[in-house]
Amino acid sequence: MKLYTYFRSSAAYRVRIALNLKGLSYDAIPVHLTRTGGEHRQEGYTAINPAALVPALVDETRVLTQSMAIIEYLDETHPEPALLPGSALDRARIRAIAQAIACDIHPINNLRVLQYLGRELGASEEQKNAWYRHWVELGLQAVEAMLADDARTGAFCHGDTPTLADCCLVPQVFNARRFNCRMEAFPTINRIVDRCEAMEPFRLAAPSNQADAE
Amino acid sequence: MKLYTYFRSSAAYRVRIALNLKGLSYDAIPVHLTRTGGEHRQEGYTAINPAALVPALVDETRVLTQSMAIIEYLDETHPEPALLPGSALDRARIRAIAQAIACDIHPINNLRVLQYLGRELGASEEQKNAWYRHWVELGLQAVEAMLADDARTGAFCHGDTPTLADCCLVPQVFNARRFNCRMEAFPTINRIVDRCEAMEPFRLAAPSNQADAE
Repeated sequence: MKLYTYFRSSAAYRVRIALNLKGLSYDAIPVHLTRTGGEHRQEGYTAINPAALVPALVDETRVLTQSMAIIEYLDETHPEPALLPGSALDRARIRAIAQAIACDIHPINNLRVLQYLGRELGASEEQKNAWYRHWVELGLQAVEAMLADDARTGAFCHGDTPTLADCCLVPQVFNARRFNCRMEAFPTINRIVDRCEAMEPFRLAAPSNQADAE
Repeated sequence: MKLYTYFRSSAAYRVRIALNLKGLSYDAIPVHLTRTGGEHRQEGYTAINPAALVPALVDETRVLTQSMAIIEYLDETHPEPALLPGSALDRARIRAIAQAIACDIHPINNLRVLQYLGRELGASEEQKNAWYRHWVELGLQAVEAMLADDARTGAFCHGDTPTLADCCLVPQVFNARRFNCRMEAFPTINRIVDRCEAMEPFRLAAPSNQADAE
C-alpha cells in the first residue's frame, strides 16, 4: 500500500496510526501542504485525489480517500486487531467519538481555513490563534464529557484496546498542545492520550517521526 | 425511537432520510437552534447530548449522537435496505463521499461558525455569505469529481439505490441552493439530488415537511 501523507496533517496521522496498529507496512509518499503553494493542489496529486486533501491510500490500484473511511476499510479488510470492536452500540459510540473530533473540531481548524481567515477576512495571527483555541477547546469539552461520564471508557476511549476513536483523538490533542490550548480541563483525554503515546504504533505515526518532518 | 431534531439542521435531515429509507417510525422532538439563545445549549438538551448539537437518537435507553454514526448504527441494526451495500471497497467509496460532505463542507458552514465570524471577527453578512459559498462550492467541486469520473456512480451516488452518501448529499445541496451557491458546475450532483428529492423518504425528511418548520 502507498500512503500519500504530510507529516503534520492530522488526518494522515490518524491513518498512519491505524496502519501501525494493524501491523501493515506501507510506502509513505510525502505531499507538502505549504511548499510552492501546496503540492496537494498540483496536478500530480489532484489526479490521485481531486479533493486536493491528504491522506489518500492506494491499495493495489484503488485510491481511497477520507481518513475515517480509509480506517474503516482497513478494519474490514484486516480485522485484527479490531478498531471497531464489539456490538452495533459499541461501534456507534466509537464512531461518534471519532466524528466529534473529525467533523466538529478538525475541519474548522484546518490549514486552508486558517489561511482564508487571514487572506479574506484580514484576521490577525492573534485572532487566528483565538479561533483555533475556541473550536478545539469547545470540541474537546464535548469529547471529555462523552468519555468521563461513561463506564465504557477504559484505558482507551472505548474499552481497553485502541479504536478508531483513539486514532482520531491523538492527532487532535497533538495539535491542541502545539497551539497551546488549555488542556487541564480534560483529564480523561490527557490520560488516554498519554497512554496511547507510550505505544509504538502511535509513536511511530507521530509527525516528528516522519521522513518529511521539518 | 426518539429523534432530537431541528427542521433546518443538515445533520438531523440526514438521519431523517435514513430513518425513512429504512421505514422506521420515530418521534421527532424539536430542539430550536436559534430561539432563546439556542435550546440545544440548555440543560434539558445538554443532559442528553453534552456536545450541544443535533441530532441525537434515543433507541430504548441509549443515546446516540453524530449523524453518520447514527446512520451506520441504523444500517447495522436494520440491514434492509442497505445504506452501505457491497464490498469493503464499495463501502469505502460511500463513506468517502459522505465524509467529503460531512467533514469537509458542512462543519465549516455550521450556524455556530457563521455566528462566530460575525461576533468575533466582525464579518459582514456579505462576507459570511462569501465564506459559505466558498467552502460549499469548493467542497461540491470535489464531490462532483468523485461522482462524475467513476463508473460506480449510478442513479444515486453509488449504484442504483440510495446510500449513506445520498443521505449526506441531499441536505448539503438543499442548503447550497438556499444560499444561492452556483450549482450549474455540478451536473452529476444535481441529477442525483433531483432523483432523490422525487422519492418519498427524502421528501418527507425535508425541512419544509417537519412539524417545527417555520
